[in-house]
Amino acid sequence: MFVLVNLKAYPCDPVAVATAAHEVSESTGVRIAIAPQAAHLSAVADTGVETWVQHVSPVEHGSHTGSTLAEAAADAGAVGALLNHSENRLKLADLDASLDAAERVDFETIVCANDPDQIAAAAALGPDAVAVEPPELIGTGTPVSKADPDIVRDAVDAAAAVDASVDVLCGAGISTGEDLASAQDLGAEGVLLASGVAKADDPRAALEDLVDPVA
Amino acid sequence: MFVLVNLKAYPCDPVAVATAAHEVSESTGVRIAIAPQAAHLSAVADTGVETWVQHVSPVEHGSHTGSTLAEAAADAGAVGALLNHSENRLKLADLDASLDAAERVDFETIVCANDPDQIAAAAALGPDAVAVEPPELIGTGTPVSKADPDIVRDAVDAAAAVDASVDVLCGAGISTGEDLASAQDLGAEGVLLASGVAKADDPRAALEDLVDPVA
Amino acid sequence: MFVLVNLKAYPCDPVAVATAAHEVSESTGVRIAIAPQAAHLSAVADTGVETWVQHVSPVEHGSHTGSTLAEAAADAGAVGALLNHSENRLKLADLDASLDAAERVDFETIVCANDPDQIAAAAALGPDAVAVEPPELIGTGTPVSKADPDIVRDAVDAAAAVDASVDVLCGAGISTGEDLASAQDLGAEGVLLASGVAKADDPRAALEDLVDPVA
Amino acid sequence: MFVLVNLKAYPCDPVAVATAAHEVSESTGVRIAIAPQAAHLSAVADTGVETWVQHVSPVEHGSHTGSTLAEAAADAGAVGALLNHSENRLKLADLDASLDAAERVDFETIVCANDPDQIAAAAALGPDAVAVEPPELIGTGTPVSKADPDIVRDAVDAAAAVDASVDVLCGAGISTGEDLASAQDLGAEGVLLASGVAKADDPRAALEDLVDPVA
Repeated sequence: MFVLVNLKAYPCDPVAVATAAHEVSESTGVRIAIAPQAAHLSAVADTGVETWVQHVSPVEHGSHTGSTLAEAAADAGAVGALLNHSENRLKLADLDASLDAAERVDFETIVCANDPDQIAAAAALGPDAVAVEPPELIGTGTPVSKADPDIVRDAVDAAAAVDASVDVLCGAGISTGEDLASAQDLGAEGVLLASGVAKADDPRAALEDLVDPVA
Repeated sequence: MFVLVNLKAYPCDPVAVATAAHEVSESTGVRIAIAPQAAHLSAVADTGVETWVQHVSPVEHGSHTGSTLAEAAADAGAVGALLNHSENRLKLADLDASLDAAERVDFETIVCANDPDQIAAAAALGPDAVAVEPPELIGTGTPVSKADPDIVRDAVDAAAAVDASVDVLCGAGISTGEDLASAQDLGAEGVLLASGVAKADDPRAALEDLVDPVA
Repeated sequence: MFVLVNLKAYPCDPVAVATAAHEVSESTGVRIAIAPQAAHLSAVADTGVETWVQHVSPVEHGSHTGSTLAEAAADAGAVGALLNHSENRLKLADLDASLDAAERVDFETIVCANDPDQIAAAAALGPDAVAVEPPELIGTGTPVSKADPDIVRDAVDAAAAVDASVDVLCGAGISTGEDLASAQDLGAEGVLLASGVAKADDPRAALEDLVDPVA
Repeated sequence: MFVLVNLKAYPCDPVAVATAAHEVSESTGVRIAIAPQAAHLSAVADTGVETWVQHVSPVEHGSHTGSTLAEAAADAGAVGALLNHSENRLKLADLDASLDAAERVDFETIVCANDPDQIAAAAALGPDAVAVEPPELIGTGTPVSKADPDIVRDAVDAAAAVDASVDVLCGAGISTGEDLASAQDLGAEGVLLASGVAKADDPRAALEDLVDPVA
């Protein structure tokens, strides 16, 4: 199982969370990555944790003020990109171009989507993985794997029907080891979470609890 | 073959083009529809021509100032919706919601996309048809069927692999009967065009020439 | 006082509301205009009521699929344009271009804004009027003139400091004659409202009550 | 005179340009700042040069995946923010909120705008400075101060009429010392440039030439 912790724009200490994630990953053998704000990428990558960027712009080098260029994210130590998060929805054509941008720098990619239809559409663009995140469950603490297990199974089936090489992750409401285990039971290859770790009083303990079933 | 004429925001007389399209359709038996500005929908529909809207908003009835509500387009006489045109690209989640909106009022739908990957993604959302429009050919007068026939064949294959019930139309650069015939040869079920008719000195003659090979 | 009723994408009968508005305006001498969906413009204008469009695109005639061209809105009978409503916020440069578009067809213009700073910015672009609409009050039924009278006074002052010829309207939460009277007392030249009329059981009665203090 | 070099998403070495800028600033006494990609902020700030971010998002701490949080930019060493660049136009309400965000972390702010009307609107929002950048001159090598000196004078007047404390910078096409001197003659307090330095074969020499008239 792969665990990607999206720090969003939360008021957490990104280096502290990254350090904890790196140590928990090392001690348990579970793959854990951290996705900080672009401006925090190099500080997070310096902890040794696997570092992802929260978005890359659908552009190449050029006149693009205020963009998040894939090459700049790679320079800062990122090795993967989260795309089309529900808080940063992309146009279909831009999503395709952002995947091209990520590919230029050999980033691993995860595309978020709301439901099985959109998961199938995302899978058709050839990312490494897709993450199903019903918007109504994001940030609720109610895991999608419990609230709507069928949507996870349907997402796994929908992605497989389009491209069997695309993994499916489970997002929205994941916070405990039990959530992660049930995501795995439903066919997910990983989980995408945010507040459950980033806003935890003790991010290390939260991560240890999270990965316990697969450690 | 289905011919959809997108009037965009061109300085043409929408009623005159619609009237010509209706008459050519009636006299030749070829299905021709006109997609005017939303504000021109009722005037165009009054000519008797099949009328499409150029876009519908991904919303339901509610507080959405300045939107193009599917129900309002239907009230004005539209029976179909063009979505995700390269001049009006939608977010993946909004495209899915706009298709839901169109379905509420039983609109026929065509989703535009740049290339075979995006065609596959669009097809996964379940529209009636997709239209392949390489952006670099739009408005050039060079038909995609001539400039890049493989992209049309690949689009037909990509759509069929995802959902065999989704038709493929050929957009970008179509203006003559020869273009339409070659689109048909490549597996397209119709053509999407704009300036070739809307900016023609004689829209009726342009339409007659266009549909001649299939009339 | 000027009363502009924004029908948004509400499930009301736009022709019935427009007819009522026209009759109340005729019988009371109070200026009342209706802003329907673009697709409903011609049906609304046919009632004889003063008709506004809810938005115009920042473009000229050309390749702009899915836009709301000022000229098309004018063809359908609109004589004014609401711009930058909180449900349809525009980029500063586009707002300027939409005002240019509206000017091409001699539309009267109202630009919405959240607070006095943004009112001053909007006034600097030279619209006929600005409307102050604190987002937190929209649709609440609590009139801005009661909840936060200072924001209306400050908006009047802010607009006057930039351009004394720009009128200020009061939006957000207006529904009764009392609300309209207090808006007038605070220096507003009109009111912008929506649900108070469009979602009323009896739009005519709602309008009669609304304009009673100035009839 | 203040010189702000926007590195956009150019394929330059940001640390090399920043180092050169820092040294030229130190040796000449002219204030020079560098605005890199967000992911490059900390590497650029480590050179000692005054560091600006190319954009900040109109948000506070919270669920905003893929944003550019002002606090994160400040953590990485930025002390100023460029806003509303023509390649990253903001909605009026978001521009106001981005200025609030920049103020939270005591950033100095420059808001770009196309022409004197928009300069006045931008000035009304209370930034430290505005930069007039006619879009048609960006990247041309033709300085606005030569191509259209009146637009600079008018921008200076327009800003002063709204808020005399707001400085005006001259953007678009600036690359030489002569350009900088003429901007100063027209009343500008600084220049905003990009390719003239970032794409120069020798950025240090380009900067030395640029600041020579005021060194």
